[in-house]
Amino acid sequence: MTQSPQCPIPLRDYPNVILAHGGGGKLSAELIEHVFAPAFANEHVTLLGDSTTLSLPGQRIAVSTDSFVVQPLFFPGGSIGHLAVNGTVNDLAMSGSKPLYLTAGFIIEEGLPVEKLIRIANDMGAAAKQVGVSIIAGDTKVVERECGDGCYINTSGIGVLPTNLHIASNQAKPGDVVIISGTVGDHGVAIMSVREGLSFESQIESDCASLAGLVQVMIDTSPNIHVLRDPTRGGVAMSLNEIAADSGCGIELDDASIPIKEAVRSACEFLGLDPLLVANEGKLIAIVSAVDADRLLETMKLHPLGQDAAIIGRVVEDAHHLVVARTAVGTKRIVSIPIGEQLPRIC
Amino acid sequence: MTQSPQCPIPLRDYPNVILAHGGGGKLSAELIEHVFAPAFANEHVTLLGDSTTLSLPGQRIAVSTDSFVVQPLFFPGGSIGHLAVNGTVNDLAMSGSKPLYLTAGFIIEEGLPVEKLIRIANDMGAAAKQVGVSIIAGDTKVVERECGDGCYINTSGIGVLPTNLHIASNQAKPGDVVIISGTVGDHGVAIMSVREGLSFESQIESDCASLAGLVQVMIDTSPNIHVLRDPTRGGVAMSLNEIAADSGCGIELDDASIPIKEAVRSACEFLGLDPLLVANEGKLIAIVSAVDADRLLETMKLHPLGQDAAIIGRVVEDAHHLVVARTAVGTKRIVSIPIGEQLPRIC
Repeated sequence: MTQSPQCPIPLRDYPNVILAHGGGGKLSAELIEHVFAPAFANEHVTLLGDSTTLSLPGQRIAVSTDSFVVQPLFFPGGSIGHLAVNGTVNDLAMSGSKPLYLTAGFIIEEGLPVEKLIRIANDMGAAAKQVGVSIIAGDTKVVERECGDGCYINTSGIGVLPTNLHIASNQAKPGDVVIISGTVGDHGVAIMSVREGLSFESQIESDCASLAGLVQVMIDTSPNIHVLRDPTRGGVAMSLNEIAADSGCGIELDDASIPIKEAVRSACEFLGLDPLLVANEGKLIAIVSAVDADRLLETMKLHPLGQDAAIIGRVVEDAHHLVVARTAVGTKRIVSIPIGEQLPRIC
Repeated sequence: MTQSPQCPIPLRDYPNVILAHGGGGKLSAELIEHVFAPAFANEHVTLLGDSTTLSLPGQRIAVSTDSFVVQPLFFPGGSIGHLAVNGTVNDLAMSGSKPLYLTAGFIIEEGLPVEKLIRIANDMGAAAKQVGVSIIAGDTKVVERECGDGCYINTSGIGVLPTNLHIASNQAKPGDVVIISGTVGDHGVAIMSVREGLSFESQIESDCASLAGLVQVMIDTSPNIHVLRDPTRGGVAMSLNEIAADSGCGIELDDASIPIKEAVRSACEFLGLDPLLVANEGKLIAIVSAVDADRLLETMKLHPLGQDAAIIGRVVEDAHHLVVARTAVGTKRIVSIPIGEQLPRIC
């Protein structure tokens, strides 16, 4: 370091993130200038200031927050950057809202190669651009080695809600139909395969994607969507159990109708996982009036993210709020909530 | 563990956080039910669902995000819980907005005593209640030992802005007066004292506090506040340098007029720190038209958080956008931005 203090220090002098990048001084500013600002470029962004001010096109909004600690940071089908944007966008979309703005908070472990951080930021920028959301505020902290694990990201989001929508997890009604937008378990199995060093005949990729576009066409098709939920951590089983409990009803699934890729099914058998408990990052569950179910399914199948959509069950009266699946051999099994998790650090 | 799977598992069976608390299953739900929900209780909170929907009393809003990685988690004058609420509340208040809603994202290291997490959550709830903000959405992740450091918290916030306010870091004008709301350096020195095991004649406490109330009375007093900034990481020096750069002006300080507690001054000398570079968590810098300065100062002094408020300098024309301080012996020194940080993990 022979440069004078007046000379801006190019980021490239530091191949790895150091503690000082999180100190709020010149190095912090340079990380923002060289890494985040180019990746997140938009009219609203003021990543250096205390807060960002903006005008909303409506007063009814949806708000969501999610922290991402997935390991590894890069995996088949995406990265923590894609996940951090799509995860929160999807949480917003599940209320029927149109996602507009995200904040991004980074907790970086000292020693992370700057090159990796740039890739992550670029993945976030690309994912945000694709779905039409702006990353409007950010924060960066750096922690010592062994006080982190590469990079953790929190994203919080704001969406605007049409005033006539009331989609919520307590709105399922007996007689409603349960639709899944595509194959189950892809994300979790993709992560586990990398982590366990497994290889299968065909590579399993994460389904990480923004569901906001699919939700928009679904809302335009049916005014009778009662619940939307993206089955991430805890999988389809967790989401359906929450819906049953919140709505005070039961849910009956037909195992044979649940779309699962053959490679994912094999991997789950090998790893001893129940596909219904495995995280998805680009799938949604819709609970809709029976009268609209077929029409909604057809609409979903026309969307790139809904090609494998299927009706997988229905809502029933049940004082115990159980989720039950009819197996291929005609018996019934209870689809219960896991106590903990099968797969740590999956998102 | 002899309980049947149907029996809710009391949180007390687990004195420390385990990975499964972050798995999105029953243990995650119990952590929310027993720890976060009681602490954050408010009409909007839906900590289990994907997102929270709400109505805003205006369409012009301020948004901010901040992650907190302070070490130790508890320190004289506060905790990471107080910081996580007040830090984001203060960032919002610096735009002149009224903070209304916060989200909270936790990244917990496996092994954190649940008792500590409860204290942190209660501190957040108490701080939120005191300032009148609601914690409306949350997320919990758990990472393995040595992949975290007890507990990290991200808070993101939303405030509503009066339409007639345009307070921003690029609004300082030559002739404006620089006011500080109180003594400088308390938070940073309190943290460092604990970390280094130092004890001074009088205990130094963090100034961690919400500035939203003080800002409200200031706005009510003067329509000519041009800039508000809370000098946290990087201290007063960093904030003033950013304001000078953003506004295209210089700033002249009078060292003798800057309020610093005697114990803080001694500690800074002992630790080799410049008090102007030390983080504050309950102080603000206001840059205001000279015509309103005295009246604003009087108003601030009547508020509990502004009793030690003082005029510390003025905005000047300067093509180099320097912050310069006149020393006690009449010389001038440049108050420059640190390259990295003096004090890692201060907030």
